[in-house]
Amino acid sequence: MKTAGAQRAAVRPRVGRKMVCKASADVARVAVLGASGYTGAEVVRLSALHPNITIAALTGEKQAGKSFAEVFPHLVSASNIGALVKIADVDFDQVDAVFCCLPHATTQQIIKSLPTNLKIVDLSADFRLRDVNTYAQWYGGEHAAPELQEEAVYGLTELKREEVKKARLVANPGCYPTTVQIPLVPLLEKGLISKDDIIIDAKSGVSGAGRAAKESNLYTEIAEGINAYGVSSHRHMPEIEQGLSDAAGADVRVSFTPHLMGMQSTIYVKLENGATPDSLRAELEARYAGEPFVRILPKGVVPHTRHVRGSNFCFINVFPDRIAGRAIVICVIDNLVKGASGQALQNLNLVMGFPETTGLLQLAMFP
Amino acid sequence: MKTAGAQRAAVRPRVGRKMVCKASADVARVAVLGASGYTGAEVVRLSALHPNITIAALTGEKQAGKSFAEVFPHLVSASNIGALVKIADVDFDQVDAVFCCLPHATTQQIIKSLPTNLKIVDLSADFRLRDVNTYAQWYGGEHAAPELQEEAVYGLTELKREEVKKARLVANPGCYPTTVQIPLVPLLEKGLISKDDIIIDAKSGVSGAGRAAKESNLYTEIAEGINAYGVSSHRHMPEIEQGLSDAAGADVRVSFTPHLMGMQSTIYVKLENGATPDSLRAELEARYAGEPFVRILPKGVVPHTRHVRGSNFCFINVFPDRIAGRAIVICVIDNLVKGASGQALQNLNLVMGFPETTGLLQLAMFP
Amino acid sequence: MKTAGAQRAAVRPRVGRKMVCKASADVARVAVLGASGYTGAEVVRLSALHPNITIAALTGEKQAGKSFAEVFPHLVSASNIGALVKIADVDFDQVDAVFCCLPHATTQQIIKSLPTNLKIVDLSADFRLRDVNTYAQWYGGEHAAPELQEEAVYGLTELKREEVKKARLVANPGCYPTTVQIPLVPLLEKGLISKDDIIIDAKSGVSGAGRAAKESNLYTEIAEGINAYGVSSHRHMPEIEQGLSDAAGADVRVSFTPHLMGMQSTIYVKLENGATPDSLRAELEARYAGEPFVRILPKGVVPHTRHVRGSNFCFINVFPDRIAGRAIVICVIDNLVKGASGQALQNLNLVMGFPETTGLLQLAMFP
Amino acid sequence: MKTAGAQRAAVRPRVGRKMVCKASADVARVAVLGASGYTGAEVVRLSALHPNITIAALTGEKQAGKSFAEVFPHLVSASNIGALVKIADVDFDQVDAVFCCLPHATTQQIIKSLPTNLKIVDLSADFRLRDVNTYAQWYGGEHAAPELQEEAVYGLTELKREEVKKARLVANPGCYPTTVQIPLVPLLEKGLISKDDIIIDAKSGVSGAGRAAKESNLYTEIAEGINAYGVSSHRHMPEIEQGLSDAAGADVRVSFTPHLMGMQSTIYVKLENGATPDSLRAELEARYAGEPFVRILPKGVVPHTRHVRGSNFCFINVFPDRIAGRAIVICVIDNLVKGASGQALQNLNLVMGFPETTGLLQLAMFP
Repeated sequence: MKTAGAQRAAVRPRVGRKMVCKASADVARVAVLGASGYTGAEVVRLSALHPNITIAALTGEKQAGKSFAEVFPHLVSASNIGALVKIADVDFDQVDAVFCCLPHATTQQIIKSLPTNLKIVDLSADFRLRDVNTYAQWYGGEHAAPELQEEAVYGLTELKREEVKKARLVANPGCYPTTVQIPLVPLLEKGLISKDDIIIDAKSGVSGAGRAAKESNLYTEIAEGINAYGVSSHRHMPEIEQGLSDAAGADVRVSFTPHLMGMQSTIYVKLENGATPDSLRAELEARYAGEPFVRILPKGVVPHTRHVRGSNFCFINVFPDRIAGRAIVICVIDNLVKGASGQALQNLNLVMGFPETTGLLQLAMFP
Repeated sequence: MKTAGAQRAAVRPRVGRKMVCKASADVARVAVLGASGYTGAEVVRLSALHPNITIAALTGEKQAGKSFAEVFPHLVSASNIGALVKIADVDFDQVDAVFCCLPHATTQQIIKSLPTNLKIVDLSADFRLRDVNTYAQWYGGEHAAPELQEEAVYGLTELKREEVKKARLVANPGCYPTTVQIPLVPLLEKGLISKDDIIIDAKSGVSGAGRAAKESNLYTEIAEGINAYGVSSHRHMPEIEQGLSDAAGADVRVSFTPHLMGMQSTIYVKLENGATPDSLRAELEARYAGEPFVRILPKGVVPHTRHVRGSNFCFINVFPDRIAGRAIVICVIDNLVKGASGQALQNLNLVMGFPETTGLLQLAMFP
Repeated sequence: MKTAGAQRAAVRPRVGRKMVCKASADVARVAVLGASGYTGAEVVRLSALHPNITIAALTGEKQAGKSFAEVFPHLVSASNIGALVKIADVDFDQVDAVFCCLPHATTQQIIKSLPTNLKIVDLSADFRLRDVNTYAQWYGGEHAAPELQEEAVYGLTELKREEVKKARLVANPGCYPTTVQIPLVPLLEKGLISKDDIIIDAKSGVSGAGRAAKESNLYTEIAEGINAYGVSSHRHMPEIEQGLSDAAGADVRVSFTPHLMGMQSTIYVKLENGATPDSLRAELEARYAGEPFVRILPKGVVPHTRHVRGSNFCFINVFPDRIAGRAIVICVIDNLVKGASGQALQNLNLVMGFPETTGLLQLAMFP
Repeated sequence: MKTAGAQRAAVRPRVGRKMVCKASADVARVAVLGASGYTGAEVVRLSALHPNITIAALTGEKQAGKSFAEVFPHLVSASNIGALVKIADVDFDQVDAVFCCLPHATTQQIIKSLPTNLKIVDLSADFRLRDVNTYAQWYGGEHAAPELQEEAVYGLTELKREEVKKARLVANPGCYPTTVQIPLVPLLEKGLISKDDIIIDAKSGVSGAGRAAKESNLYTEIAEGINAYGVSSHRHMPEIEQGLSDAAGADVRVSFTPHLMGMQSTIYVKLENGATPDSLRAELEARYAGEPFVRILPKGVVPHTRHVRGSNFCFINVFPDRIAGRAIVICVIDNLVKGASGQALQNLNLVMGFPETTGLLQLAMFP
């Protein structure tokens, strides 16, 4: 199922294994930077079975030298993948494209140092905000690569497909912003909901917090409980407001309260210009009619996070609110797939000219 | 720890055990009707160690004849409790007070048939709505005991303490309405928030759905997922609107979306009359200053459902919203304790003249 | 991704839709009987993306008439699948092969009534036990199709591959017996472990109990707890003993204690004929060297259920016991995939002459 | 409910608050060392409502200065508890007894430095192993207080009650050893089971691993999965073998495989001297007849971890094994209560001469 090339990491000779992957029109040699985290592992899971992708290198600074299967035994069956290496040891001449799964704030420096012919899908937040000042304000430091920022395309695939196709550097969206913008952008563009009264009660899987060993992520701290966090100050807020303001053609300010669990946005909106809950549904159905990964569920069916687990799908529905003139929009995704690595692969497919759904049509696992 | 009386069920001779509990000024002989469900079991757990309560009878129509410990092995250590019997076999002459943990709709008939000298705390929804027409509309049938409805006192303890003390029949509130009314009633009474723009994103534990064997409550259907349910049509809505309308002195209509998970209400409100998030906190702190079970957490601390698990406490906090002029109120309880059986015991304590906190001061279990 | 044929159910005209799937050498038209349960849904999930399978009919007696996506919204994206029908309404002339996902005890009658040219993979227990008397003893009734029993091939793929290839009726193994026989059969055949001292402490996912709405399967009864069940009397026992006795060439009697959770067998064995834990590992590595779905993990690495979640893989390892002369074998699978529907598809691939791994190479999902 | 003394921490003047608790015959002024971990918090939860205990000081080296409720908001209602301090700042003249909840290996030094008049219940492993060489071997370092080791009493309450009453330093047992020794010691003492063939398949709650922020304890690494760990080499093994060898009057070596999940030991034993599963049950019932916290369940009833959650109870039952001449013993506890802090309080009650069950009769929470 994998060509011989798949077994060869694009690693510089000095690390002891000379490996060469040949470029070809329909195979991309891909390096995954930061492959030891959850989004990195998910990128590898999806890419390992992708017919047009050869994994050329996996990096992990702290775990360099370990086999990938030692770090993620659930991927031991993707047996042609080699060991983790340091970024400095990757021979980027043997690489066509990069998934960058590194932490926020360190990513700009690293991407700046890569050869400029590489195609890059960046899963961090480092290139998501167009305004470098907003970036500095929310992420606590100067933007280290403002010239690259101008080049970066915001990769919410369904809304930016044409730009993504032509992009060299794609900023893959956050999981919350994905569940908010997919349903709201069409509605704001058509003026069907008020831009001044958007309340987002969002629930996210713990895995969204990454694999960092923090007390607040311990099993015992989380199991069988819920809690809101980052009330009124979550970093996905400027990203959401950027996207919605674009759609509304005016500044949009939202109420956004993330909760730790699943990955769902329950969004409370105020109807405008004669819109009704049914017309919102109709608008979303029309807008996403041809989309392979966005589904407006039948009227009355409530999206569950379990319905999309492990898949790249996004399920949406609209319900009348009990307060007249308002509606409730529910949108669910798997936060590691459509909310991160799946959408990243969707974007890479576009960037490389592969069919957009390649390697991404797995159905959800339930129960 | 238990007097001899504790070992005697108030069961009529025909079921073969003649048992007599003597009434005394400071001991209430209590029957738990519907003791085979979750709220019934929780009432027994809390009552078993209560110094002023003797459990005189436990009923369960389908499981009559079984020992209680067979149905709920976790209470086997409350060893003086006898077998489940049918309601018809209870000798109510030997009973002072009743916890009624029966299903909605069947409760009115049964309470109507009980001796009128009994004190009753009813955990069903059957006497919560003052307007019998609203009851008929939401619960799908005529009210079977309208004369008792007039007598019933709505037992949200912190808000109705004086009425509860004098009551014979207490309608114990639903878990959602408890998390909504405790924080909002004081704010509406003072006109600090708008009555026309209240959005409640509520999350509840699965146990709130009872022990009925339905597919939608199966472990495999629920584990590791979330889902909204009863969007815009949950039966707790009229109860909530009744309480908030009273507080506002005008009709209040709320947006209410319950989710299966924990027991938390995240409430989005619009500020009025110069109120600020801080003044909401101050108002709640003042209002609940002497309350043994309501805590306004320090500024900025987010209430978690884990903080109240297994306890009768209610934790609240208020946060500024990102939309100017709005605030977010978070309120958590354990849905089986303060949301049902704990509050029921709190009410019975008042009804019987016992100290209100007796048997209820257990601290939360974490993790 | 699907040919037009995929959109057509092999349903008799009377149910109002005339649909015809053409047979072809490399496409099997498949009916899934009992598609409304968990194993049925999982068979559909795996088959929907299988390049050689067209889903011709899905049956569900109680839910006939409903669209499949209404019953399992997580599969709404497999959009070419039609509605559930009754078995009596399926036109089996348009069907090449059947996955039978019906309950134990009813399956024999139904399979007996099917055209004898159909290939069948039966996921129930009805044809797993060669001895019809043992069947009667454990499943509480006469075997209804003893003539078919003789024809049935026990489909533990890795151990019976050649028989399965030639079979018409395959009895797909239970999940527990799969985790026990894959590691133990090679060891018993080689006489490396004692047949008289095998202790199996098995842990299974709740989904193994099916979608029946029973109190003991409610979320609230299970979450955050563990319990053994069917201690010394689980119905998978005769199936396990049948397989191990065959391997040992003598009667084997095992100690088997299933627990509700995950899907893992921790097996305690006594070494014989000079065997050591290392020689057990070596034997298993040799035996399963070419197997696509069985992996012996590197020495010392403990198999986790999370490592195989959602995949058809089986991970095994062997550890020295602290008691001299003994060893501990740990084997994990996903109980719905390799433990049921995945192995069923693996068998169907063999029966139909498709490559054995087709549609089954998904990697595990983690976290 | 708390006397004024409860509000006063026994903290040296230099930390700014002069507080004095007066000693009295029936009140113990208690310091909890290491109160910022799970067992520390659980000790505080149980002690806060104990009528004979005044919490005099809570220590936490890293979090000193923070209020206890800031670290554990679920205990905010135990409002009279002050801030965390450093051990060096505790005025031990104002302390009668100490719960020591510090990590293994550091505890010996600290206890050595405490005034010798203090009564101490140590929840670490540091004084559990009589043989200091065994300690060094399993815990990786010299025993730092061998002279105290001789004085230490192993506090498995039900088996060592008289020694504990007279003890100054009690080594509180580990959770696994508790679930193993309570059922097996009586059986070994009577020669009813073979000492050479004891197989323990143990499952423990994650909280047993403490609050240390390690990757392997993250929610995402654990949720919905199971895994064995420390196969054949868990540190509780020498403690178990010490206790069982004492009971057997000869060296006992057990097979012990802990799993992360709940807190249950499923123990496989070989019968001796004509014993039967029923005679094992009878022996355990006779042995523990008067015990307040140990229950042998009715014949055939399987102990669940949920039956003891949050309580100090230990539930046991015995089942026939399918292999002739063998039996299966199942024992469940809550790993933080009877497995740690509850048993510690039970021991402190004995040490101080309080009734043994004081503050410990809470019933289990379910669901």
